[in-house]
Amino acid sequence: MTDPTSPHMAEKTTLLVLDAEPPPRLGKLTGRVRIEHADESTLAGSLPRADVLLVWDFASHAVRHAWPGEGPRPRWVHTASAGVDHLMCPELAASDTVVTNARGVFDQPIAEYVAALVLALAKDLPRTLELQRAREWRHRESQRVAGTRACVVGSGPIGRAIAQTLKALGITTALVGRTPRPGVHGPDELDRLMVRSDWVVSAAPLTEETYGMFDARRFGLMQPSARFINVGRGQLVVEDALVQAVSRQWIAGAALDVFEHEPLGPDSPLWEVPGLLVSPHMSGDVAGWRDELGTQFVELFERWEAGEPLTNVVDKQRGYVPGH
Amino acid sequence: MTDPTSPHMAEKTTLLVLDAEPPPRLGKLTGRVRIEHADESTLAGSLPRADVLLVWDFASHAVRHAWPGEGPRPRWVHTASAGVDHLMCPELAASDTVVTNARGVFDQPIAEYVAALVLALAKDLPRTLELQRAREWRHRESQRVAGTRACVVGSGPIGRAIAQTLKALGITTALVGRTPRPGVHGPDELDRLMVRSDWVVSAAPLTEETYGMFDARRFGLMQPSARFINVGRGQLVVEDALVQAVSRQWIAGAALDVFEHEPLGPDSPLWEVPGLLVSPHMSGDVAGWRDELGTQFVELFERWEAGEPLTNVVDKQRGYVPGH
Repeated sequence: MTDPTSPHMAEKTTLLVLDAEPPPRLGKLTGRVRIEHADESTLAGSLPRADVLLVWDFASHAVRHAWPGEGPRPRWVHTASAGVDHLMCPELAASDTVVTNARGVFDQPIAEYVAALVLALAKDLPRTLELQRAREWRHRESQRVAGTRACVVGSGPIGRAIAQTLKALGITTALVGRTPRPGVHGPDELDRLMVRSDWVVSAAPLTEETYGMFDARRFGLMQPSARFINVGRGQLVVEDALVQAVSRQWIAGAALDVFEHEPLGPDSPLWEVPGLLVSPHMSGDVAGWRDELGTQFVELFERWEAGEPLTNVVDKQRGYVPGH
Repeated sequence: MTDPTSPHMAEKTTLLVLDAEPPPRLGKLTGRVRIEHADESTLAGSLPRADVLLVWDFASHAVRHAWPGEGPRPRWVHTASAGVDHLMCPELAASDTVVTNARGVFDQPIAEYVAALVLALAKDLPRTLELQRAREWRHRESQRVAGTRACVVGSGPIGRAIAQTLKALGITTALVGRTPRPGVHGPDELDRLMVRSDWVVSAAPLTEETYGMFDARRFGLMQPSARFINVGRGQLVVEDALVQAVSRQWIAGAALDVFEHEPLGPDSPLWEVPGLLVSPHMSGDVAGWRDELGTQFVELFERWEAGEPLTNVVDKQRGYVPGH
C-alpha cells in the first residue's frame, strides 16, 4: 500500500526495517508510513533517509558499522531484542537519537526456560535421555530444588522474572544488579553470593562493566555441587574458564543458551563438554514471540507518531533501560 | 545389639524387614526391638513370628504371596512407598493388621519432577540435547507454560503438591479425585477436563477403579498439542494405547516414570517411541530419601510402641490413605 505516487509521500515518516523478512503486525501502519527494507549490505545507504529504524534482525551488528555519525540519521531506533549491545556504538550513544528495546516480551519465557534448565539439571534429565537411548534402566537419586539457593545476576525485568519463578519453586533467590536497592544486591556482594549458591544465573545486559564478568576467579568461588546458567549474553562469560571449571568438575555443570560467537559452529569444542548443556539462543522465543515483538513496535510507533513519550527507552551510556 | 541370650528377648517386639540391605536410621531402635531380615525367599517362613513388618523393598510383590492368611501374622505392616498396590491382597485387606505408608516423603520431590518434565517438554529440551550431540545449531520456537491448562489425576498429597507446583508456574490446574470436594473434581468430570488440558498428569493410587483408566478412549479425548505424564503406577495406563497415541501424533508427547512391568527390559518397545520420554521410576527419589523413609518409620514405630494411634493408616479397601 506504499504508493510512491502519493502526493503526501514526502510528509510520511520513513520507517527502515533491517531484516530479510518483513516483520508481522506492521500492516496496521499501512498508508501512514513509508516502509523500506534493508539488509546488512544496503543499510548504510538507506540509514540517512530513515526517520525510524526498526532493527528486526537483532543478531546483526550492521547498525554499529553503518551508523552515519554526524550525518542525517534516524531520530529513533527500536530493536526487537532485550539487549542493545549489538547495535550500540559511541556515535549512536553520543547522538540525540532515541533507542528503545523489547523490554517485557522475553521476561516470562526466559524465566520459564531457566526454571526448565534448573529442574532438568537437578533431576538429571540429560542422563535419563542418554540412558533411554541406550535402553538402560538405571535408577538414580536426584536433587530436591526446594531449599536450594540461587543467585541471579541482572536485576532488570528478565532477572526479576527469573528470580520470581525460582522463588515459586522454593529456591532461595538473591538478585544482583548494578545499583543496590531493596531486594537487589550490589556488584560487590556477588562474590559472597556465588560462594553459597547452588545455582548462578547470568541474565545481565552486556556492557563494559559486565563483559567477561564470569571468569576463572568467579567460577573458582562456586561450590563443586553448584551449576552455572547463562541466558544473558555470551560475552558475559569467559568461555574457556567455564569449560575448564565444568570439565574438571570444579562445578557440577552448566547450561549456556548464549555464546561469544553465534551461531556456534560445528567445530566448537563447547558442544562436547561433559556436563555442559548447549542450546541455540532460544530461551525467550516462545510461539507467538514475533507477533508480540511486532505488536510492541506498532504500539511504540503510535506513541511516537502522536508525539507522546516513548517507553522502553534505553540509557545509551549504561546500555539498558534503567528501572526499578 | 540384638542379644539372643537376653532374658527379656521374649518380650521384645519382633520387627521383620523385607530387604536385602538394612534400612538407615533404625539404629535408634537398637535394644528395644528384635530386628530380623527377610528376602523374598525367606519371607513366608519369617512372617508368622513377626509383630511388625517393614516393607523396605517396596518394588517386591512378595508380601502378597507370602501373607499367612488366618495364621499368626504381623499386627502392623509399613511400606516405604506411597502406593500399597504391591502388597495388598484380600487376606491382608480382611485382617485386622494395620497398614501404613510413606505418605508425605515423596510429595515435593515428585511435584518438582513433574514440573521438570512439563518444562522440558514445553521448551523442547530432549530435541535440544539431540541437536547438541549432532553439533547442530538449530533455533526453534518453544512453548510458554504460563497460561496453559493441566489436569492432575490423584488428589492425595502427591497430586496436591503437583497441582500447587504447576499453579506456581502459572498453569491453570484442575485436580481430579475419587471423591469430589472443594478444589477437587470427581471422576465423572475427568473426560471433560482431559478434552481441554494441555497437560494430563497421572498421580493416582492403583486400585480396581483406576486400573487401566488411561486407555485409547481417554487418549482420544486429548488435544493433538497435549501431553501425558505418568508418575503414579504403570498399570493406570494401557501402554499400547499410549504408544499408539504418541507415535501417531494424536497427542504431542508423553513422559512415563512408571511402567506395567518394571524394570523395563532392554527389548521393550517403549524405549524408542518418538515423543515418549522414559525414566526409571525415580520421580520421588531425591538425595536423602532413604534417610527420610527410615526416620519416618522410626517415628511411626515409637508411636506404635507407646500405644499411640498411628498416622498414615491406609484404608485397605480403597488402597490409599483417605485424606482431605
